[in-house]
Formats: sequence, C-alpha cells, structure tokens
Amino acid sequence: MNYNELALKMHEENKGKIEVISKVTLETRADLSTAYTPGVAEPCRKIAERKDDVYKYTAKGNLVAVVSDGSAVLGLGNIGAEASIPVMEGKSILFKAFADVDAFPICVSTQDVDEIVNVVKQIEPVFGGINLEDIASPRCVEVERKLKEVLDIPVFHDDQHGTAVVVCAALINALKIVDKKIDEIKIVINGAGSAGNAIARMLLDLGVKNILSCDREGILSRDVPQNNWVQDEIASLTNHELLKGDLAFALSGADVFIGVSAKNVVSKEMVKSMNHDAIVFAMANPDPEIMPDLALEAGARIVGTGRSDFPNQINNVLAFPGIFRGALDARASDINEAMKIAAVYAIADLVDASELKDDNIIPSALNKKIGADVAKAVYDAAVKSGVARI
Amino acid sequence: MNYNELALKMHEENKGKIEVISKVTLETRADLSTAYTPGVAEPCRKIAERKDDVYKYTAKGNLVAVVSDGSAVLGLGNIGAEASIPVMEGKSILFKAFADVDAFPICVSTQDVDEIVNVVKQIEPVFGGINLEDIASPRCVEVERKLKEVLDIPVFHDDQHGTAVVVCAALINALKIVDKKIDEIKIVINGAGSAGNAIARMLLDLGVKNILSCDREGILSRDVPQNNWVQDEIASLTNHELLKGDLAFALSGADVFIGVSAKNVVSKEMVKSMNHDAIVFAMANPDPEIMPDLALEAGARIVGTGRSDFPNQINNVLAFPGIFRGALDARASDINEAMKIAAVYAIADLVDASELKDDNIIPSALNKKIGADVAKAVYDAAVKSGVARI
Repeated sequence: MNYNELALKMHEENKGKIEVISKVTLETRADLSTAYTPGVAEPCRKIAERKDDVYKYTAKGNLVAVVSDGSAVLGLGNIGAEASIPVMEGKSILFKAFADVDAFPICVSTQDVDEIVNVVKQIEPVFGGINLEDIASPRCVEVERKLKEVLDIPVFHDDQHGTAVVVCAALINALKIVDKKIDEIKIVINGAGSAGNAIARMLLDLGVKNILSCDREGILSRDVPQNNWVQDEIASLTNHELLKGDLAFALSGADVFIGVSAKNVVSKEMVKSMNHDAIVFAMANPDPEIMPDLALEAGARIVGTGRSDFPNQINNVLAFPGIFRGALDARASDINEAMKIAAVYAIADLVDASELKDDNIIPSALNKKIGADVAKAVYDAAVKSGVARI
Repeated sequence: MNYNELALKMHEENKGKIEVISKVTLETRADLSTAYTPGVAEPCRKIAERKDDVYKYTAKGNLVAVVSDGSAVLGLGNIGAEASIPVMEGKSILFKAFADVDAFPICVSTQDVDEIVNVVKQIEPVFGGINLEDIASPRCVEVERKLKEVLDIPVFHDDQHGTAVVVCAALINALKIVDKKIDEIKIVINGAGSAGNAIARMLLDLGVKNILSCDREGILSRDVPQNNWVQDEIASLTNHELLKGDLAFALSGADVFIGVSAKNVVSKEMVKSMNHDAIVFAMANPDPEIMPDLALEAGARIVGTGRSDFPNQINNVLAFPGIFRGALDARASDINEAMKIAAVYAIADLVDASELKDDNIIPSALNKKIGADVAKAVYDAAVKSGVARI
C-alpha cells in the first residue's frame, strides 16, 4: 500500500487521530467529589477572585488551538473547514508527540478575517496559545496581526514563521559548509505569499542584504504595482536595485534558491546559472520546484526539500512544538522575533560540526531531543526579551 | 482535608484535568507520513469530495463541545468564562469516563445570545455534538433553541434536559413505591428558570396533569405578568386554576416537591402539609431546599437531593454521557423528546423492582453500566423517531 491508502485506512480505523482524556481518576465517590461537585467549586472561586489562577488550576497553560479556515490546506487549496480537520488533528498530535503540548483543532466555517479573529478571541479563555494553519495569503497575515493585537497569549502562524525558522536554520548550516558569509550572498525566494514574506523578513534579521523575491510574474519590484499588500511589503524589503525579469534571470549568479511555490518551476539550466556551491531549498509539497537528483546534476552543492524521502528535510515539525513549549513554559505574551531567532540557532546547533555534511545540514524530524532544545532557547529568549510572565 | 482543599490540590498538581492525546503512534518516518504529510492529504481529499466523510476520517463523530459563558456556574453565579473552566473540564472527563465520549471545554468570553450562537456555529465543523452548560436563564434557552435551528448536530443543554431526565426517572420509580398514578398527582416545582421549565415540560409529556411552578414571588399564574419569556412559557403550561399564593400555600396537599432553587426555602411545616407518602426532591446545590433528615422527620416518605453523601442522588451524570453516546452512535441530527423520554425509562429501569426502596430509587452515579443502557435506549429512540443518520 502507498501512503494514501495507508492514511485512509489509519484514519478510518481510528476515527481520526485525537482523543480527550482525563489526567485524574474517576472511580470512587471521592474522586467525583474532588474532580467535580462539590470540590470543583473551589478552583472556580479562586479563578473568579484572581483570573490569573486559570493557569494554576486548569489545562489552559498547556493548551494550544490549531486554527484553520481550510482555505489553503497543504497543496490542496481551498477545501473548507471539514476537509482540513485531518491536517489539524495531525498537527495536534505532533504537538503532543514532540513537545508534550496539548493541542486541539479549531476549524472554522468562516473565511472572513474579522469573523475568524472574533471566533478565536471568544474561545481564547480555554487556550494558552494559538497556532494558525493553512489559511490563504494575505488573509492569514491579517488574521495573525489582528489576533496579536487583541490577545495576550502567543499567536503564531506556522506556515509563515515555522517555515522561516527551519529554512533559516538549514541555511545557516549550509553556509558553514560552503563557507560563504550571510551578508554577502544573493538569495532568490520563489513564491511571494505569506511564507515567502516571513522568510524574507527573517533573512533580513539574520543579516542578508541581497534578496530577490519572485512570483509567477517574475521579480517583485516596489516601483511596480503588486497584487496585494503582503507583496507590497515583500517588494519594499527586497530588490533594492529595482530589477525586472523572470525567475531564470533572478537565479543567474544567485547563491541560494528558496522555493515555497510549485512543482517543476526550476530547470537544470537555471541551477547551472547559479553561483558556485549553490544551495537549493525546493520545498513545494509534495513535488518540489526541482527534483534533488536534477539539481545535483546541474551542479548544486546542497539540496533540501520538504520531503522525508530525500536528505535535508526542511520540516516545520522541527520548530513549532519546541517554540510553543518554550513560549508556554515562559507564559509568554507573544512569540516575538527574538524567540524565533533563538529557535533558528537551536535547530542549527543540533547538527554538530563533525556531522555537518552536504546531505546532513538539519536534524531529523524524529530526533525527540529537538523539542526540548528549541523550547529551552525560546524560553530563555522570552525571558530576556521581556515577554515572559513567570 | 475537605473536598475544597483536595480539589485545589488535585487541580494544581495536574494543571487541570484534560489532556489531548494521539490515537496513533508517531515513532517512525512511516508513521509521520501516514498520520501527517504526505498521507494525510488523502482523507482531506475524500472529505473535500464528500463532506459526510468527515465522520469517517476524523474524530468529529465522537467529539462534544462543552460550551459555557460562565454566567451561571454551579451555585456560584456569573463568574465568567475563565472561572467556569474547572467545571467544563470536569464535565468533559465525566463524558469520557461514563460513555467514552471525547469532550472539550469551549468557554466563551461573550454573554450575548447571538454572539454565543455565532461562535458555536463557526467552530461546529470539528464537533459531533454540543452540550451547553451553566448559562444563565433565559439566555440558555434562547441559545439552545437558536443553535438547534442552525446546526444539524445534536444540541443539548444539560442543566435543562439532563436534570429533567434524571428527575423524571427518579419520580417514576418513587411513584412505583408509593403506588400513585402519574396523572393523578400534584407536583410543585420551586425555581422557575430553565431547569424548572424543562422539568415541567417533561412531566407533562409523561402524563402529569397538575403542576404548580413557584419562584421567589410565589406561584406563577398566566394571568399575571411574568419576569421573562421562559416564565411566561412555564405559566402557560402549569397552574390551570390560576391559583395565587406562596410556596407554603402551593405545597399544601402536594404529592411531590421538586426543588431547583435555593437552600432552606422549605420548612418542616411545609412538608407536613403535603399529601401522604410525600416525595421531596430537594436539589439545590450544595445545600438543599430542606435537609433530608428534616424532610423525613416531617413525614416525607422519599427524599432525594443532588448530593453524593445522601441516598437517592439525583445526578445529571446518570443521563448526559449515555444520551450523547446514543445520539453520536446514531449520528442523530437532534436530541429530541423521544430520545430524552427513552433515557428516563432506561435510567429508571436500572433499579430492579426487587431493589427498589425508599432510599434506593435511582442507580448510583458510579454504576458504569448506566452509560451503555441509556445509550442503547437513546440510539433506538433516535432510529425510531427518524433523526438517526446511519
């Protein structure tokens, strides 16, 4: 059986993947009287007196809502709330497996920015954090920024920032191998949506100077009207020379290609035109912008994809569980840039200098040490940057 | 330690009571590929093609939202969403323990009827049923009726219908003991909120003819203006003789007292004035309308309360887990009167004729057979009444 058939079988036999269980036993009358009435009234009273005690007596402090409107699910597009549930349940169990975070899918039947913001705001009392997922751009950026304004718990859009963190970790290690300086390289990002935007912003934070961002129509340039405000933002941050041209033109002489776009949009010729020791991160899922064997044949030195069946899997699961673990442990009011950058270096550092190779720039998704290491770095950064509340 | 201290300790040590776990293992690359990408795309595609497959491939069919706005929590009043969480987590684990239903607390930070309805409607894709809890009257009745209109999954307000089901089950068994006919008895319900309303309506369905409903101002009578539309509804269904008077007047000659009101509002003298073989269900929590020993001294034959430390505990946990189990198994579009009445008789029948005694009219909350028996009866009633969708 292939993974499609296996997945159908697994999902049907288990009727989904999540289960809500009790952390306490309920066998005796005394158990009932402690977990439920009359005893339960006492933690209620405490929280009514001091709202902050909700972190002391309820599951809130370890509970993340995985929120989607089903508008941009995997590579499947706008398939709606119900059809997005398998992904959100999957995300929920990854949170649990990799960082012992309890996560619960909230798939909303509206695709209106303000309505999504309102629903999340209304159900916030139960949750210690909000992870946004698979919401179409630019709506996802609007939802995220508005929620960050109205909520004082961490809000994180994994498709933007989780991706950016893992790409940057992979890039930092790849640059060690090819011995290039981050402020001297030329990077081309293909795909000018929310992920491309977040990656560009984080690369700038890390010291990259020269970024070209492309969409289907070619290089974004701020002197040309863009399709939406997220692209305006990207254009304002990149392509300082106001270059015009297609992806092939952009890639000529580039040190790094970062694809968050679509399959087969990069040819061998394009890779050949890149600078020596080219780094190619072709992350379109499930089919990359260029298959790894072709990229290597064309002279790329280091190739990464989003897939588990090739080396250098650039996978968000390296980031989001530990990031939330650290943020929740610090009871952070936000997941800020300092915390994300801390996650970048924590992930990069998990590959020891002695193990660093062209086909081993990033730790395996199955390495269960990652969650704890990332959590610690993020926790420390939360404390240092003043958003911790413990 | 008393239950208050035990409860604080238990809630703090466990950081609340619920946990979200995976039903599948996530150890190998193959596990990840089946539970998450790329395999997870296939159940998503199936649901996108046929929305009903959400019951086949996700946890929806076994998942109930326990929804509260924190406006009428236990006897504590309007303590808000955060302070209601311990109760809703408690309810969630009772669902799991007594009927293997996965339940999750949704505590909303609005107390506006239409906003609550809207939030629940928006998050409905993930859930197979909605249990409303601890919402003030008459708002709770409005929320419930509006949600029943807009959703095609079961919506159930436990404080109304769960209470009514268990009271009626207890009453049916009590009447067997005192050998009175249900259509000949006089019943006084004290407390004219949503629970009192639901109890009155169910008693009428069971054949009771003579009900007086009282609130703090005395007997409700339809020729006098009421405080809200729920009380209008109660008045329209009860007190056909348009009697006026206080609770003491109402109780004179009554066969049954049902209290969903406040502590110590019934005196020994009032119980003395009741008919022979009086039945007293004093369910105010934690302190009943009259303490059982006083009621018995005053001549009551059968006394029940909401408390676990006295005989005849009239406890909603006898009803709601099995009712939802049956409704979910039948994939019912509603929890209708037929299903609730089926639950009444299933609970009553759990006390065998040979075991039926003045102080044993209702099964113990710890009897784990109840969930299954109630579920079966409710399932059958769903099928027979045409709301099952399997």
